[in-house]
Amino acid sequence: MTEPIRVTVWGENRHEQLEPEVARRYPDGMHGAVAQGIEGRLGSGVQVRTATLDEPEHGLTEEVLRDTDVLTWWGHAAHGDVSDEVVERVHRHVLEGMGLIVLHSGHWSKIFTRLMGTTCTLRWRAEHDRELVWTVDPTHPIARGVPHPMIIDEDEMYGEFFDVPTPDELVFISSFSGGEVFRSGITYRRGFGKIFYFRPGDQEYPTYFHDGVRTVIANAVEWAVTDRPERTTPTLLRYDTEDFYNGQGYRGALKAGGEDTA
Amino acid sequence: MTEPIRVTVWGENRHEQLEPEVARRYPDGMHGAVAQGIEGRLGSGVQVRTATLDEPEHGLTEEVLRDTDVLTWWGHAAHGDVSDEVVERVHRHVLEGMGLIVLHSGHWSKIFTRLMGTTCTLRWRAEHDRELVWTVDPTHPIARGVPHPMIIDEDEMYGEFFDVPTPDELVFISSFSGGEVFRSGITYRRGFGKIFYFRPGDQEYPTYFHDGVRTVIANAVEWAVTDRPERTTPTLLRYDTEDFYNGQGYRGALKAGGEDTA
Amino acid sequence: MTEPIRVTVWGENRHEQLEPEVARRYPDGMHGAVAQGIEGRLGSGVQVRTATLDEPEHGLTEEVLRDTDVLTWWGHAAHGDVSDEVVERVHRHVLEGMGLIVLHSGHWSKIFTRLMGTTCTLRWRAEHDRELVWTVDPTHPIARGVPHPMIIDEDEMYGEFFDVPTPDELVFISSFSGGEVFRSGITYRRGFGKIFYFRPGDQEYPTYFHDGVRTVIANAVEWAVTDRPERTTPTLLRYDTEDFYNGQGYRGALKAGGEDTA
Amino acid sequence: MTEPIRVTVWGENRHEQLEPEVARRYPDGMHGAVAQGIEGRLGSGVQVRTATLDEPEHGLTEEVLRDTDVLTWWGHAAHGDVSDEVVERVHRHVLEGMGLIVLHSGHWSKIFTRLMGTTCTLRWRAEHDRELVWTVDPTHPIARGVPHPMIIDEDEMYGEFFDVPTPDELVFISSFSGGEVFRSGITYRRGFGKIFYFRPGDQEYPTYFHDGVRTVIANAVEWAVTDRPERTTPTLLRYDTEDFYNGQGYRGALKAGGEDTA
Repeated sequence: MTEPIRVTVWGENRHEQLEPEVARRYPDGMHGAVAQGIEGRLGSGVQVRTATLDEPEHGLTEEVLRDTDVLTWWGHAAHGDVSDEVVERVHRHVLEGMGLIVLHSGHWSKIFTRLMGTTCTLRWRAEHDRELVWTVDPTHPIARGVPHPMIIDEDEMYGEFFDVPTPDELVFISSFSGGEVFRSGITYRRGFGKIFYFRPGDQEYPTYFHDGVRTVIANAVEWAVTDRPERTTPTLLRYDTEDFYNGQGYRGALKAGGEDTA
Repeated sequence: MTEPIRVTVWGENRHEQLEPEVARRYPDGMHGAVAQGIEGRLGSGVQVRTATLDEPEHGLTEEVLRDTDVLTWWGHAAHGDVSDEVVERVHRHVLEGMGLIVLHSGHWSKIFTRLMGTTCTLRWRAEHDRELVWTVDPTHPIARGVPHPMIIDEDEMYGEFFDVPTPDELVFISSFSGGEVFRSGITYRRGFGKIFYFRPGDQEYPTYFHDGVRTVIANAVEWAVTDRPERTTPTLLRYDTEDFYNGQGYRGALKAGGEDTA
Repeated sequence: MTEPIRVTVWGENRHEQLEPEVARRYPDGMHGAVAQGIEGRLGSGVQVRTATLDEPEHGLTEEVLRDTDVLTWWGHAAHGDVSDEVVERVHRHVLEGMGLIVLHSGHWSKIFTRLMGTTCTLRWRAEHDRELVWTVDPTHPIARGVPHPMIIDEDEMYGEFFDVPTPDELVFISSFSGGEVFRSGITYRRGFGKIFYFRPGDQEYPTYFHDGVRTVIANAVEWAVTDRPERTTPTLLRYDTEDFYNGQGYRGALKAGGEDTA
Repeated sequence: MTEPIRVTVWGENRHEQLEPEVARRYPDGMHGAVAQGIEGRLGSGVQVRTATLDEPEHGLTEEVLRDTDVLTWWGHAAHGDVSDEVVERVHRHVLEGMGLIVLHSGHWSKIFTRLMGTTCTLRWRAEHDRELVWTVDPTHPIARGVPHPMIIDEDEMYGEFFDVPTPDELVFISSFSGGEVFRSGITYRRGFGKIFYFRPGDQEYPTYFHDGVRTVIANAVEWAVTDRPERTTPTLLRYDTEDFYNGQGYRGALKAGGEDTA
């Protein structure tokens, strides 16, 4: 990769408008803080833009997504306001090879639950717990340069059971002052896309200015890039015997509707 | 488990009506053959019923699903005719603990793609390939008593890349006369439900009368039962510090719509 | 399984002899407490015997192992006194299908490190931490009936990084008063044997009388049984084309020593 | 990584001395062909040396290993001639972070079975089967640029059941003319080291000149590098409460020999 990684940082950007203390905490929006963290770590290795809910098509047009190698997603209060059409578009791009980094309360976003197939629920509490983030996969590229443990003085608590598929890789486990634990850094591959879910980060706390949190997100951006010659969806095709490389579509047989192949 | 396992065998049952040779091959329907195979293996250990696409609500009412421990699913030509409402209902029951066994062309069913989050496409060819099913997890309960390899004289070919999430467990890998390979027996846990996808079985071949195939499906029925005191969905709840057992729902904060918790 | 599961509970039994307070805590030895816990839960479903370090061949003769479906292992102060010959024997039996449950400080036993291939080190502290054991795989048979969380009022702390291979299944994660976390219930399949490592249980605490701990160990005993027609080691054999079932050994070729096959 | 990756290609180099046709096929030794393949792909990104069995300490002194980022291993006829001391040394270096790529018949090497903890046996046949190598993890860095399938006109057959631990990642599955399948590209992480096993490559065939095989090995070299500030073994240490960063060794307690910690 000599080309810079094209990153789109998506933010819901509602708390910042409705709650003055969030606006004070994140004067450039939470998405702004995330974007600055990535740029600060990766410099000329990335080209970062932001997009937010209230822009047309939430700022996630076909054109924007086609030009995005990695999308980060933070949402919380307004998951229901994200249009199904945009969700389907993002979903398709992930399967075609766009990386996706889902942050904190994004666990309940339409795009994440769509990709996971589960409820993605958990236990929670917003009581200034201290979070310790422990690395359990120390050679994973996302854990590079991350303290063991990483200490976040105050953050919201998320606890198990976290109703997600068993991750492909479990990178971080968090504990909280109250004794709860959480699989807080987990990876998935879906289609040709790579997905990283990372737990820390609530609007009530300055988590996206935290040094270690920024390191993790920047590492994840680099990890989530899919390096394939073109961006395509896996497609069902018929292959003749001994012709391993030229699949064909198929129209035929049953009239009763639905797919008539395979 | 001293109670019999309550199994519902779902069949699309369209080929059997539209194609005389399929009707001859499967005089009781493909669902009938699957049901008989399960009963033949598990006897009084199961209570099997069938349900098909053209019944009201496809035979999958709330009441039926509530009384089902394990659902098997075969569909092919009419995936598009399955109502979204029924799919959501089945999806919810799987997450609450109903086992699901997806057979062959069910890979493209709405319920399977909904649970997987991917396209679930593959390569295919219907040219009487011999299939060899090899066990790569020999102590898995689903592989018990299955020959290594299991030989299926003729079946449709499915080949990789199979666009599904990395399975929790890879039990069987198939090869075909043409040299293709396929992850043909794979497990997933989603919510409180256990899922097994099993490749063999096309309407053009008498696969569901095959001895080994029947053994695998019966083993999978036993494996897919979730043994929990009640059937419930994982739910997002707030937990006070040191109160580990009494989560609460939460209504509050932001007015801007959407979830206002976590 | 209508036959009872034949369980051998192995205990190092040194602390009990050398430290009066351990002897008072565990008047029948730690192995005695573990054995009683299994019998109490599984009753006529098991046939339990114990074996200890100071018996001839540590009580683990070929004959004993041949009659053992599941072996549990607790050792701590005297790992180095276990004879390499017995370790090789146990290792062979695990690969042939004997279940193995490794408890607590058994993480550093010769048999566990032999099976894992890693150092199996960790962080630790014996300061009366409260341990909370959280279930992250709620449909796993080993988690059946286990409270979420399971609370152990006082126990030794073990913390990550735990240098073991990524487990096949992660069933439990523990947290401790000090904030450390640990993958405390993990499964592995090696050869035809099933292995469960379970963290709780130190000689300084009455952990093996704990209700939940006993439930987990009993569940694990049932889970660890390999159900195969005979107990055999996987063996390298040559197979002729199209003769899938009759492999042959091979002696030939190179004289220069070493294996001359494959 | 701006520094070149330091690669040591280890070859048994016995067939080349004892069998004229192998010497003709691999005039620079099999290790020579492997080394040239890596250099041809990675150029100035690597610094490659070779080492063979008959050198003092098999060419794998402490000094050589300390200067090696990734070691590749091919052995076959003389596994038994590799000294246990060197095996322990290589094992330690892998756990400390040296990458290891095990090729073909290296499945039965002392170092691989030591790291896996299993027999690593398989079925085999040397009858000029065509091998097709299918990618099942298309975004894995080791699969980059590899044809799907990769065709190897003639090679030895290896078939399942391959008695290894369930891999962390399954990248490639092979099929053979005879219908066998094999998990032929698999990864493991052990300690701080990354391991890749790759099936193709027998002394009887010119496999290490194959374009795709060379691509895979070069990709694996890049993947197997552990990027940590120093090369150290995971070590068991005691940590005081709230002192997360300064572990201590411990000498004390029981006199009865063995480890007296944890």
